[in-house]
Amino acid sequence: MKNSEIKTVYADNAATTAMSDVAIDAMTLYLKEVYGNPSSLHTAGQKAKEALDGFRARIAARLNADPAEIYFTSGGSEADNQAIRSAAYNGAKRGKKHIISTAFEHHAVLHTLKKLEREGFEVTYLDVHENGVIDAAQVGNAIRRDTALVTVMFANNEIGTLQPIAEIGALCRERKVTFHTDAVQAVGHVPVDVKAMDIDMLSLSAHKFHGAKGVGALYVRRGVPLASFIEGGAQEKGRRAGTENLAGIAAMAAALDDACDNMNANAEKERRLCDKIISGLSRIPHSKLNGDRNKRLPGIVNMCFEGIEGESLLLLLDDAGICASSGSACTSGSLDPSHVLLALGLPHEVAHGSLRISLSEYNSDADADAIVETVPKVVAYLRNISPVWEALENGEKPHLL
Amino acid sequence: MKNSEIKTVYADNAATTAMSDVAIDAMTLYLKEVYGNPSSLHTAGQKAKEALDGFRARIAARLNADPAEIYFTSGGSEADNQAIRSAAYNGAKRGKKHIISTAFEHHAVLHTLKKLEREGFEVTYLDVHENGVIDAAQVGNAIRRDTALVTVMFANNEIGTLQPIAEIGALCRERKVTFHTDAVQAVGHVPVDVKAMDIDMLSLSAHKFHGAKGVGALYVRRGVPLASFIEGGAQEKGRRAGTENLAGIAAMAAALDDACDNMNANAEKERRLCDKIISGLSRIPHSKLNGDRNKRLPGIVNMCFEGIEGESLLLLLDDAGICASSGSACTSGSLDPSHVLLALGLPHEVAHGSLRISLSEYNSDADADAIVETVPKVVAYLRNISPVWEALENGEKPHLL
Repeated sequence: MKNSEIKTVYADNAATTAMSDVAIDAMTLYLKEVYGNPSSLHTAGQKAKEALDGFRARIAARLNADPAEIYFTSGGSEADNQAIRSAAYNGAKRGKKHIISTAFEHHAVLHTLKKLEREGFEVTYLDVHENGVIDAAQVGNAIRRDTALVTVMFANNEIGTLQPIAEIGALCRERKVTFHTDAVQAVGHVPVDVKAMDIDMLSLSAHKFHGAKGVGALYVRRGVPLASFIEGGAQEKGRRAGTENLAGIAAMAAALDDACDNMNANAEKERRLCDKIISGLSRIPHSKLNGDRNKRLPGIVNMCFEGIEGESLLLLLDDAGICASSGSACTSGSLDPSHVLLALGLPHEVAHGSLRISLSEYNSDADADAIVETVPKVVAYLRNISPVWEALENGEKPHLL
Repeated sequence: MKNSEIKTVYADNAATTAMSDVAIDAMTLYLKEVYGNPSSLHTAGQKAKEALDGFRARIAARLNADPAEIYFTSGGSEADNQAIRSAAYNGAKRGKKHIISTAFEHHAVLHTLKKLEREGFEVTYLDVHENGVIDAAQVGNAIRRDTALVTVMFANNEIGTLQPIAEIGALCRERKVTFHTDAVQAVGHVPVDVKAMDIDMLSLSAHKFHGAKGVGALYVRRGVPLASFIEGGAQEKGRRAGTENLAGIAAMAAALDDACDNMNANAEKERRLCDKIISGLSRIPHSKLNGDRNKRLPGIVNMCFEGIEGESLLLLLDDAGICASSGSACTSGSLDPSHVLLALGLPHEVAHGSLRISLSEYNSDADADAIVETVPKVVAYLRNISPVWEALENGEKPHLL
């Protein structure tokens, strides 16, 4: 089916996005012209430093943070690692070695927590319920005298569910526990206000909102101690060594401004297209939308189709020109079903048949139509050749969906 | 003196370089067109992955490494942090908690070592002698039964001296001690062959050879264990999480190919211009070239001028259109004299009056002439208004140079 006449539908924006023209233009200036090292005293360096300060202020403003509260990193993963390790070790100094998180965080969070567990920290993983949303009350019940940190993602990267961040923030503030949120999928897509939401630390990544790969930021509220993670030069107030990626930061500022200026219109469009996809694909028998129908990012749809294997579905969709995913890009290649879908309580055999469609404002009605037209055909084809499906249809096994 | 008619002489290439056109062109393609996530299974992702594999192979070839031995990072600092921590912890598992390094490493190495010292490791800092070059024999004498790691920089970033890396490598291989070298200033400028030089781990940074800021690599010899530093997704064989900065890596591959293809011609030009500068500035009374006259990178000149203050010198040179530095950009802003110059045994008051001129192949004879013409005037002016210099000239204090 694959040929050059098929227009590609890029529906994997939760994995990464195409850069916007404004971001590319902003970046190019700093690749070509303003190439000084912001730490240098001479004019070329000071020009770079002034630009860096300006980008920091613009990014801070979009989060309702102060510029001094923004630390640039190489991306969301580094920001998560630094935030969590810093808060954990800071807690340990005061005898606090308990951390609260959820079972469906991104691996940048989960693997950091696993490492801390091996170092003697104790982690409570909150149940995310069948709808993929936790209650703030669960956090309240889990907080102990020795709790150093609560880290809960703003929006899940596989199913798109939004967590009650402001409620969790208020609760943590009241109980004097540091609150970090991995907001990699949320920033630029839904309103994020670190002050109103009582967020102490927040991770973001530029390439999730049409910026460049390899650049992100960590917000740390004034007064919350931050340990350095990459040691070396005195960049980022001594908290993050390494010559600043000025061109990437320029692109991030431009992309974030663009995303925030157009947030309502983009969200409305994505929601409309996703609604069309959800209602179209829900007609497939034994299918299921994963995650709460309403508390969700506008652009992510995640569905399970019983009796098929997610990877085969993706490859056939790709042949038909549709780029989608079965879950997080970071773990594709793994044969295990998604830890997120398992956390929702889905059985292994159902979680295996998942499809994540993630749109941006660059997607069109034609894209949604192509998805609604193609996915049911591919699912039917796969079920036709599947012995598992045959057994299900013959009543030899019970349907789960 | 500063006005728009003055052509800027950029002589701070050890801090950072202007990107080459080939690097910008290579980057742009991956910013605009090939934007998939290399971890995604679909065509957009697989195109990105194929490109990534190709860049890895090209960069490996330039170091005489295998592609599987190259791990991409956000730059030299991250690579140094990961290599040193990994080797240290790996050694500790076998009861080896001793590390050998030098007193004039980059802060990405020194600050990592300081952190390890606080964690119970012991570090021997080798004396770098007056000429800024260590002997391999010093390493041999310092190796103990519990030595986990030797980390010695390939070329010093402030004075440009080259260390006997192949000899140190051979010695470490023979004594079965892991050998890491921070080659951030060397790669693309002088021949680097990880096999011939018996290097186990090597850090490099793209923006030091006309690549982009925010991207680098760590070479790790097959068989040498590497612990992950940034936890998360399974990128880089599980050793470095985070979506790959494909555009930055594309630029790095292009810049390194360009640098290596033209290494001899570039080095010859830089050496000629630097020789002109050294001989011109050596005529300044009470001046001194820092670091060995011969065992050095082709493009770095570092000199001290007694009785003046480095920062004033830089600012006046900047007014005259010359961008230079007093040492590492990463620590400018600090009032302390360079730890590198102090390690050479220079007195504080002399180390304060240092100037680093670092050229690339983009510099011209006219640039060198401007430096030779301007620096003596500025030094004379500063000495004229300096009470320290007056005291020296009146014999109230002894000259040190």
